[in-house]
Amino acid sequence: MDHDRSTYRLTIAYDGTNYSGWQVQPNATSIQFLIQHALRVILREEVSLIGSGRTDAGVHAVGQVAHFRSLSRPDLSRLQHSLNGLLPADIRVLEIEESTPQFHAQKSAKGKIYHYHLSLDKVQNPFFRLYRWHLKEQIQLDRLAEAANCFRGTHDFTSFANEAHRGPASKNAVRTICRLDIIPEEGGIRLEFEANGFLYKMVRNIVGTMVDVARGQRTIQEIHEMLEKKDRRTAGQAAPPQGLFLFKVLY
Amino acid sequence: MDHDRSTYRLTIAYDGTNYSGWQVQPNATSIQFLIQHALRVILREEVSLIGSGRTDAGVHAVGQVAHFRSLSRPDLSRLQHSLNGLLPADIRVLEIEESTPQFHAQKSAKGKIYHYHLSLDKVQNPFFRLYRWHLKEQIQLDRLAEAANCFRGTHDFTSFANEAHRGPASKNAVRTICRLDIIPEEGGIRLEFEANGFLYKMVRNIVGTMVDVARGQRTIQEIHEMLEKKDRRTAGQAAPPQGLFLFKVLY
Repeated sequence: MDHDRSTYRLTIAYDGTNYSGWQVQPNATSIQFLIQHALRVILREEVSLIGSGRTDAGVHAVGQVAHFRSLSRPDLSRLQHSLNGLLPADIRVLEIEESTPQFHAQKSAKGKIYHYHLSLDKVQNPFFRLYRWHLKEQIQLDRLAEAANCFRGTHDFTSFANEAHRGPASKNAVRTICRLDIIPEEGGIRLEFEANGFLYKMVRNIVGTMVDVARGQRTIQEIHEMLEKKDRRTAGQAAPPQGLFLFKVLY
Repeated sequence: MDHDRSTYRLTIAYDGTNYSGWQVQPNATSIQFLIQHALRVILREEVSLIGSGRTDAGVHAVGQVAHFRSLSRPDLSRLQHSLNGLLPADIRVLEIEESTPQFHAQKSAKGKIYHYHLSLDKVQNPFFRLYRWHLKEQIQLDRLAEAANCFRGTHDFTSFANEAHRGPASKNAVRTICRLDIIPEEGGIRLEFEANGFLYKMVRNIVGTMVDVARGQRTIQEIHEMLEKKDRRTAGQAAPPQGLFLFKVLY
């Protein structure tokens, strides 16, 4: 703990369409980089911005959380205004508050809520093209609901986790999905996932497999087998990034 | 009337962000041009696509209507599929149907419905940046409602019409706004305009003036004066294009 520094917590929304994702990467524009850079310009201090977790290229957020520690004592309302002035309009800082010195956006997180939007219109609504996965073929909603049943609760999700770009996937792949709701919305449905944590690409891998089942291309029995086998190669294709929203981080 | 040709009516949705507007213009990509070009490629025939009216750069449509007359007898379901295959994803043909020989997308229209979306969140939601006008300052909703009152009914809207790019504005500027509703929606409000016709930039000019009043920068009395003066220079700034949607054309 650094007692000279105060800890600040940001709530951030972004349209991920034009970015390589949350996390700083070489030769690509990341959301983390842009916000951290703007903070450094405003505070004239080498602060580090730490998010609750990465989101991939094309994935969106309405409630990403990040923190930084700073020697400055900025006026938070002015800091928010200056940040939004420097940032592009597809990234917005919704809130800044001072937090406890112990707060860590990633390590303090107790869970997360992700939403995944499926579009079921016969012709894709052009306003949803960057924010939903359009399923051209009819799907069976009762089978989608049955597939959701398989994923609720505590499981080893190894078969539904990709390896991260850097370093191996988490050693412990046991997570608890306490909620997986299927909610109708205009022109489609929204899948709401709440868990104590998510492995890399876990939501998109689960949604991809659920849709395979709802299309009749996989059976419910296969989902049980995938969960048992603990092997990523058994699961289906990941759902595309644009339907996924980091909705809320729970602390 | 050309008795060898059949008349086809298209219902079209588009995200206007990336276009110079509906109407074909030199040195700019218009929606009309792209659809007409795709039709000519598919039908191998020099068809002309006529819309119900223009929309400007950045203005969107969920229910634009257009027609063309053709010597071909295309299968309409296949034609729709081929068109959407050739068109970019931000332009979608929602429906094609054969119409009466007399049908003319512009001349047969009996009215139109436009929606204008205002965002009132303290910080602009990044997902609305291309689809709403964000009002940073507080507005007085009771004054907005009073302003709406002034515009309902039959008026000479000369003061709220811009001159068209080509040729003079309509000689007769009397129109009837039979409905102007203020509807709350997530993060803001939607203004719904229904009229027997709209002059060029009329909705955006009215919305700009209504917002001036709601911000306390103009009085209700001034609106009455503007309507009486019949001079475009008296009205306020036009509202920006991205909040405007052509919702429906009435026949």
